[in-house]
Amino acid sequence: MNGSAERLTRFLRTDEVDPAVVTRLLARARELERAPISDALRGQVLGLLFLNPSLRTLASMQAGMSQLGGSSFVIQPGAGSWAIETELGITMDGDRPEHLREAIPVLSEYCNALGVRSFGDAVDLASDLNEPLLSQIDGLTNKPLINLESTTSHPCQSLADWKTLDDLEIPTDGKFVLSWAWHPKPLPLAVAASTLTMAAQRGMDVTLLRPDGYGLPTALMERASAAAAQSGGKLTETSDQADALEGAHVVYAKSWGAPRHYGDPGSEATLRAELRSWCIDESWFATARSDASFLHCLPVRRNVVVADEVLDGPRSRVVQQAGNRLHVQKSVLLEMLGD
Amino acid sequence: MNGSAERLTRFLRTDEVDPAVVTRLLARARELERAPISDALRGQVLGLLFLNPSLRTLASMQAGMSQLGGSSFVIQPGAGSWAIETELGITMDGDRPEHLREAIPVLSEYCNALGVRSFGDAVDLASDLNEPLLSQIDGLTNKPLINLESTTSHPCQSLADWKTLDDLEIPTDGKFVLSWAWHPKPLPLAVAASTLTMAAQRGMDVTLLRPDGYGLPTALMERASAAAAQSGGKLTETSDQADALEGAHVVYAKSWGAPRHYGDPGSEATLRAELRSWCIDESWFATARSDASFLHCLPVRRNVVVADEVLDGPRSRVVQQAGNRLHVQKSVLLEMLGD
Amino acid sequence: MNGSAERLTRFLRTDEVDPAVVTRLLARARELERAPISDALRGQVLGLLFLNPSLRTLASMQAGMSQLGGSSFVIQPGAGSWAIETELGITMDGDRPEHLREAIPVLSEYCNALGVRSFGDAVDLASDLNEPLLSQIDGLTNKPLINLESTTSHPCQSLADWKTLDDLEIPTDGKFVLSWAWHPKPLPLAVAASTLTMAAQRGMDVTLLRPDGYGLPTALMERASAAAAQSGGKLTETSDQADALEGAHVVYAKSWGAPRHYGDPGSEATLRAELRSWCIDESWFATARSDASFLHCLPVRRNVVVADEVLDGPRSRVVQQAGNRLHVQKSVLLEMLGD
Repeated sequence: MNGSAERLTRFLRTDEVDPAVVTRLLARARELERAPISDALRGQVLGLLFLNPSLRTLASMQAGMSQLGGSSFVIQPGAGSWAIETELGITMDGDRPEHLREAIPVLSEYCNALGVRSFGDAVDLASDLNEPLLSQIDGLTNKPLINLESTTSHPCQSLADWKTLDDLEIPTDGKFVLSWAWHPKPLPLAVAASTLTMAAQRGMDVTLLRPDGYGLPTALMERASAAAAQSGGKLTETSDQADALEGAHVVYAKSWGAPRHYGDPGSEATLRAELRSWCIDESWFATARSDASFLHCLPVRRNVVVADEVLDGPRSRVVQQAGNRLHVQKSVLLEMLGD
Repeated sequence: MNGSAERLTRFLRTDEVDPAVVTRLLARARELERAPISDALRGQVLGLLFLNPSLRTLASMQAGMSQLGGSSFVIQPGAGSWAIETELGITMDGDRPEHLREAIPVLSEYCNALGVRSFGDAVDLASDLNEPLLSQIDGLTNKPLINLESTTSHPCQSLADWKTLDDLEIPTDGKFVLSWAWHPKPLPLAVAASTLTMAAQRGMDVTLLRPDGYGLPTALMERASAAAAQSGGKLTETSDQADALEGAHVVYAKSWGAPRHYGDPGSEATLRAELRSWCIDESWFATARSDASFLHCLPVRRNVVVADEVLDGPRSRVVQQAGNRLHVQKSVLLEMLGD
Repeated sequence: MNGSAERLTRFLRTDEVDPAVVTRLLARARELERAPISDALRGQVLGLLFLNPSLRTLASMQAGMSQLGGSSFVIQPGAGSWAIETELGITMDGDRPEHLREAIPVLSEYCNALGVRSFGDAVDLASDLNEPLLSQIDGLTNKPLINLESTTSHPCQSLADWKTLDDLEIPTDGKFVLSWAWHPKPLPLAVAASTLTMAAQRGMDVTLLRPDGYGLPTALMERASAAAAQSGGKLTETSDQADALEGAHVVYAKSWGAPRHYGDPGSEATLRAELRSWCIDESWFATARSDASFLHCLPVRRNVVVADEVLDGPRSRVVQQAGNRLHVQKSVLLEMLGD
């Protein structure tokens, strides 16, 4: 846990950051939105390692460092850089010539802070809940570290979403629905877990809406519950769409794979086959507040996760969310690297 | 059409830019060639989205922003970023997880101007002549937009070529031959159309030299004709090499696919099979002016489109053309973003 | 050969640099390590062309230019840029649309110095020893040129290694062992040749330890011998591990393909099949100096080239080596581009 007086050196989960620091990060993000350009990080370099694809994070991190007077470099293993092995103790005679145990300390030599995207490959749930990849990275760098999405957390996204909720003046005790949606393949749990925790941390009345079999693992629900307990928020879970959506201020859509079939996409596909109707269209908002907002972290599959009519309509705040990535990440960078 | 007094917000085709602005862009490009470094765009960010490969544009745009005191980021879907869907109304359950309708507004949040390369995939000629992809992008961004090559236009290349013609002191009413050349596969029409229009806009005596079946679509010829009418230039078309090349000041080589077989590479290959002699060697210049220049936009296939003897000889100005990309693009950026 | 008074315009091999310049480069690298940030190269652009993958060079070159107040761009053919043909006189009707003969002069138009990685494809040893690719590139650019690893040389790595030896206060006449190690496929000769020459240039007692059949080509041994003759160093070669390692100050591991089977990986695999025990573990250091250091250029295959116990133990200086890449490369850039 980072206290409010010490310098922030790790930004791995929003619920590991002291509430006073979260407040300061959001306040400074608003300032940076109004006055984006400075020389605050002149000469400083952000290293960016993407073990998985990216658009928003890749662009906004580079833009943000530039606007603060610094710079960045990008390493994408498999797209111009060596494929990276992450398993410990392995005999590396396969097709990955570089190990994370060298890559992280080496890149740390070239930068003032490091951002890493490391979803992992979703094989073993029990293991993944302990974030072995992120923990390994954490132990390998002596520089400030930003999680650009790991197996169970995407704190840059969640902080941007928090700012978006503030921008929209949604009450801190408003009703926040995180709804599962159909998708052609099982996706990671990070954004679902991170979003639920963030909304709970903000003190909201949080509902997890998902079909049977798509409840989040206990450890992730407990993380969100703990955040709700601390903030005075609420957390409930249901498969009943009508119940969940009634009176909602916000519907946040996201797809994820069924935890019980984690690492087994074949079985997961069978469970999911009947759930294609979980595509959020305007009818979902019938009993929500009339001004209810639609959120999603992007990228989003149109007419699969959400109908065009919602995404192109006035409820959609997805571009604003993405825009806030820039402001909150700059705020985190200043907290880590500024004077 | 951008008037000379207003700020330039779109650079999509050279013939959509007011002639006074073209003159100013070229004049400032010459200044920037002499004095390349400034802080004019300090803190400003250029977003670069490449839906197709690039070398010159990729390097020169980044270098140009840096020399002006700004910076840039690069997004290459499929090489580290999500594959991007462009079709409207589609149910996105295939292999492209992100839609252009999100990608463009989101990237626009992170930059002061956006450059996009979007050839399209050359399936439907009638549709492509309306530039559906570029039009879609145009409607999705509220930031200044630079076309880095679309289906029918490559204005950065054409403005660089214009400056090259000026550098070489080729008379504005000199003879400009755009010649088709053989190539192992059908290429897009953008550079051919853009070059023809630029030369016509400059007031030149323009000849389109191409084998039967390789005439450009009527809409693109009309675009060039209109430019010639406005500038006092001329536009003719022929398949007769001797006729076309006699007295030429400039031979600009480019290959493109036969419009009548657009989207049907098999049939196009049959038509093209007999045309391998359309490789420009020194004999092509027998009746041209003795100091005739050879131009090409690059990349160029040696001994396929043009013989080594021409490309490595004194006629070739292809590196100078490419060098001018830097200067004219910086001029466009200053016109869009400078004080 | 670059004299000490003239500006450095080529950094292709450490043994082509005047000893006084090497001394100055290393001294300035130490200064840059202490005071990394300046505006010395404000407005200057480094072009980086990678014909092969990279992690350290890619990141450190970009970081270094930024810390000096300049910037860089990266071109990676096949990862967003056109595939590049390098053969001279070829009819380019295959899958590589751009030739090096255009790419190098064009990129040179956009930068103040150019760095190029060009291993080549290891088909013809006699030819490769003449560095046809690097020589071609050398002749195509009028800008300062940095070799980011060619067929027979990796001078940025070797200068960083030299600084590491100095940092570790290893005597200039100390015992330096370059040991071959097993690897699942035949690797290029560049680091082996470059390392041997650097250690000889530094005046060390250099031993090349390799199994039968893995001696370096005569031309590369002669290069190292000449360096030893000039510096007062020694160069010996053996397949006897006990003999080689006794009293060693440094064991530098590297794998490379057997020269006699160059371009013939099938035959090479047969020769190498029995050599899997050439994996450096702690037992290799039994008769070395107790404080002997382990070096490797990275990336390194764990438990293939070197055992975890060595790489994770106190002998290993591989991260320090990689960190020194940043400092020495900035020193080279200042020597080429600074006031």
